[in-house]
Amino acid sequence: MRRMQLSKAFTLIESGPVVLVTRNDGKKNNIMTISWTMVVDFTPLFAITTGPWNYSYSALRESAECVIAIPTVDLIDQVIGVGTCSGADTDKFEKFGLTPVKGKHVRSPLIKECLANIECKVIDIINRHNIVVLEGVSAYFDGSRR
Amino acid sequence: MRRMQLSKAFTLIESGPVVLVTRNDGKKNNIMTISWTMVVDFTPLFAITTGPWNYSYSALRESAECVIAIPTVDLIDQVIGVGTCSGADTDKFEKFGLTPVKGKHVRSPLIKECLANIECKVIDIINRHNIVVLEGVSAYFDGSRR
Repeated sequence: MRRMQLSKAFTLIESGPVVLVTRNDGKKNNIMTISWTMVVDFTPLFAITTGPWNYSYSALRESAECVIAIPTVDLIDQVIGVGTCSGADTDKFEKFGLTPVKGKHVRSPLIKECLANIECKVIDIINRHNIVVLEGVSAYFDGSRR
Repeated sequence: MRRMQLSKAFTLIESGPVVLVTRNDGKKNNIMTISWTMVVDFTPLFAITTGPWNYSYSALRESAECVIAIPTVDLIDQVIGVGTCSGADTDKFEKFGLTPVKGKHVRSPLIKECLANIECKVIDIINRHNIVVLEGVSAYFDGSRR
């Protein structure tokens, strides 16, 4: 076993499900692509790592809610596209042909094209690591895609 | 999109890389199977969620170090086996035919049969969520398995 570049070690762990996280700041919807996610408990609680460098971060802090949407591989171009432009100057739902669907518990939209969606409340932010802890309050699954 | 059982929502996010985490309590090696992992930054920092219900947790707190080992699919029986018995009464390296390899920076062993190993220091524990934050200090990759 040979030594590898420590700066590439994150790629060993990052290969979990890439998700789309939506939010609404009271005026408009936005989406970000996140691959730094973790289950925290079965209730369910989730953690995502994001931070002030991300346009969605302040809206996430202020609204204290979001939706985690689970894309499938046919959405790879949209997932990469969403992750490589900014909501500051782009309507990502429109640009990438994604359809916002009204949820029940949060203002953030579900994404119709995704396999599953989880409505979440922000219950904690660990500022020193930019870890946001989310409580899932309702989950949806597109059974027709099975 | 139909509603799904909220209690199953964790399965949507859990499908990241299952890893083996080793530690040494000064007397013996042990291993646990963990699928609740996340990248926290590129330096690299990682988070894992575990807790007092896990036999390895107290050793992880006390030694403040571990190794994250990345198994491949041919190790699936070992990964499940390690995750379904306890180090309290089992030498898991011996039982599952895994080979501990001495690391450079931590007392916890690398696992020879794994594709990659990351020596880690525990730099923070967020007790209220059982989130352990790890700093990778050295990483190894088995290039012969490519």
